[in-house]
Amino acid sequence: MKTCDILVTNGVVVTMDRSHGIIENGAVAISGDRIAGIGPAAQFLDCHALKTIDAQGGIIMPGLINTHTHAAMTCFRGLADDMELMTWLNDHIFPAEANLDYQKVHAGTLLACAEMILSGTTCFADMYLFEDAVAEAAKAAGVRAVVGEVLYDFPSPCYGLIEQGFAYTENLIRKWQGDPLVTVAVEPHSPYLCAPELLIRAGQLSESYNIPLIIHVAETQSEIATIRERYGKSPIAHLASLGVLSPRLLACHCVAVSEPDIDLLVHNQVKVSHNPESNMKLASGIAPVPLLLNAGVCVSLGTDGCTSNNNMDMFSEMDTAAKIHKVNCMDPTVMDAQTVLKMATIDAARALGMEQSIGSLEVGKKADMIVIDTRKPHLTPMYNVYSHLVYAAGGHDVAASIIGGRLVMENRRLLTLDVEKIMADVNQIAEGVESGGK
Amino acid sequence: MKTCDILVTNGVVVTMDRSHGIIENGAVAISGDRIAGIGPAAQFLDCHALKTIDAQGGIIMPGLINTHTHAAMTCFRGLADDMELMTWLNDHIFPAEANLDYQKVHAGTLLACAEMILSGTTCFADMYLFEDAVAEAAKAAGVRAVVGEVLYDFPSPCYGLIEQGFAYTENLIRKWQGDPLVTVAVEPHSPYLCAPELLIRAGQLSESYNIPLIIHVAETQSEIATIRERYGKSPIAHLASLGVLSPRLLACHCVAVSEPDIDLLVHNQVKVSHNPESNMKLASGIAPVPLLLNAGVCVSLGTDGCTSNNNMDMFSEMDTAAKIHKVNCMDPTVMDAQTVLKMATIDAARALGMEQSIGSLEVGKKADMIVIDTRKPHLTPMYNVYSHLVYAAGGHDVAASIIGGRLVMENRRLLTLDVEKIMADVNQIAEGVESGGK
Repeated sequence: MKTCDILVTNGVVVTMDRSHGIIENGAVAISGDRIAGIGPAAQFLDCHALKTIDAQGGIIMPGLINTHTHAAMTCFRGLADDMELMTWLNDHIFPAEANLDYQKVHAGTLLACAEMILSGTTCFADMYLFEDAVAEAAKAAGVRAVVGEVLYDFPSPCYGLIEQGFAYTENLIRKWQGDPLVTVAVEPHSPYLCAPELLIRAGQLSESYNIPLIIHVAETQSEIATIRERYGKSPIAHLASLGVLSPRLLACHCVAVSEPDIDLLVHNQVKVSHNPESNMKLASGIAPVPLLLNAGVCVSLGTDGCTSNNNMDMFSEMDTAAKIHKVNCMDPTVMDAQTVLKMATIDAARALGMEQSIGSLEVGKKADMIVIDTRKPHLTPMYNVYSHLVYAAGGHDVAASIIGGRLVMENRRLLTLDVEKIMADVNQIAEGVESGGK
Repeated sequence: MKTCDILVTNGVVVTMDRSHGIIENGAVAISGDRIAGIGPAAQFLDCHALKTIDAQGGIIMPGLINTHTHAAMTCFRGLADDMELMTWLNDHIFPAEANLDYQKVHAGTLLACAEMILSGTTCFADMYLFEDAVAEAAKAAGVRAVVGEVLYDFPSPCYGLIEQGFAYTENLIRKWQGDPLVTVAVEPHSPYLCAPELLIRAGQLSESYNIPLIIHVAETQSEIATIRERYGKSPIAHLASLGVLSPRLLACHCVAVSEPDIDLLVHNQVKVSHNPESNMKLASGIAPVPLLLNAGVCVSLGTDGCTSNNNMDMFSEMDTAAKIHKVNCMDPTVMDAQTVLKMATIDAARALGMEQSIGSLEVGKKADMIVIDTRKPHLTPMYNVYSHLVYAAGGHDVAASIIGGRLVMENRRLLTLDVEKIMADVNQIAEGVESGGK
């Protein structure tokens, strides 16, 4: 290779490709928005690059993909913790959300994008209100995003009645068609907040555009009881009976799933987003991820929103995912580090139907990648790169981030966002929440 | 106050004193190694300080106290993960440890001290081999330490036979008497690696010098089975029958404790070190911490060594401690953020018998304190300071650290250690481990 736009070199390249290829002293060349070459650094010595990033012996890897969050909930980070779910929702979160608008969601999402870039996330799947604001904020930040307006039976502060919710979703789909960063999903909230007709129609919409369908499902035992009372079935079986299970469906949480539920997920090639920190903090339960993986289900990772976590650090989420199932199964061999890193990269891409373009470092794929600075006490020494990434590293160790071939962060400095202004804007929103919403 | 040595000002002062006092825009003045004044920043405007640290609206708080670790195991960070406990120990950890010496333990502990300072820990309790090297390294780093040579029935790479182990411990006690940073504990490994005579003698030694006795106990179900087979009792009941339970005893792990065990801990005012991340990663189980706290047991937090975690970040440990018990008890109200922060500060000081001198910000106590920089996306906005510290912050957010009145880190720069040299030394040790020990 004679020329490229960006050359990232002098690092351990963790490809996350099918062969789990690792190049000890490697480099990745980028041309336009794509990866143009990968190999030993020595192969690129004569390659003229417009920009060279020296990983200084660190790790060069695919950007992390957060498959379930509510980005703008950064506005409510730590507003209410350590309380019963219904008190939390009804007395704190819902009242605060009732005052949301386009501007607030835009500001909160910009803050989330800043946090995500600084902690190594290059793509996120979002479900919230005013999702056009989320899409605009992600585009401004240069972060890849799958956005979808939350759909439910009661009136929304964004679109009003559900009929307008579907219109809003179709407008999103049309507006963002062909965008290099933003894609759209259809996102009914959950089986307990969505009538069967809503779910069926959402499934049809996702099918007609061949785009993801994203839903919260089987998150808590109380949801299981509610759905069983209403429909005589488990939430997964209920979705199956409505014809909503498909390879396009991303089922978020899946904490309370039975073996027959898992069979349904396998049979329909449904994808799962596992959100362990949120499930722990809200005391929802522990999803049977080792069982799902053994059954062949594609499981990805998500942080959920900042009110139930309370950060968006996917490195922390990986660490927790690796540990919680070991103790839950009383087996230290489950959820090894490489498996967990797959859940946050290539399997996350698969969960969003994007495995052809992102999730691993391979020639021809979009250049979504990060560099980890390992010259730090807590990352010394390094025997095993997967172990380091899952058990020792944190989001703060990310030194550079490239999304779609664009350098969005270098040496911890955000290149696309005015972080001081963004923090001031959200602090102002928080003042309003504190004075009015509680 | 007219003068002081260091004034830390312009931050939210989280005192962790008995009244859980918080000063919104506060300051702490230090003279010599002690806290000389605490109050609103306005009260210190005329105070002439040799050095002023501007917290810039961040958090000023007691340094974190890690009550159980094996600092020098940084040398083996990530050497072996995701495997059965006995394979891990016998095929990887024990062979690597057999080649340890004073220099390696010194180098590994310096690295641990660098990591601890950079992540907000100002005091740690250590159990390992060659503990004089640990003490020297801690003193060089300026970190407060409780050190204790591990005692067990078989020959030690450090001291040889157990008789020399007790001599080594007494030498440590004499050598470090009166040191401002280093204190010594008596540290028998565990009921399964220590004969009753060893445990009794260790208890007597700790009593005669009135210093802590630190032991691993009730860590796994297999230990329970072993001790029950040998002595017909639970490990805690076995220690009780030997007269070893006392207010000086710090019982590390306590994963597998029954209600009668808890009664024994309460009755004898035994202190506990809870190590959730290690217990999860090794699939040991989940300690019944909410039960222990309800019963009135003093529970502190520890990271354990870097082979079972794999970092020493107490912020991550607090986050995990808060979340794991919520999901284990299926109750989001247990282990609220303030309770968890107590476990890492004042209750940790109590666990080490040091609550008169450290663990909270109070006039007259040793000045062991840290400053958190909150001007970051993932710490914006801030509704609740306890929630932020436990659920959102990480060790990398620590901007400054003062131990015994000495500034040891400022703006992420270590002032007492040559971090480049330390990392190079441990990388060299790791090369030896990789070529020889595997």
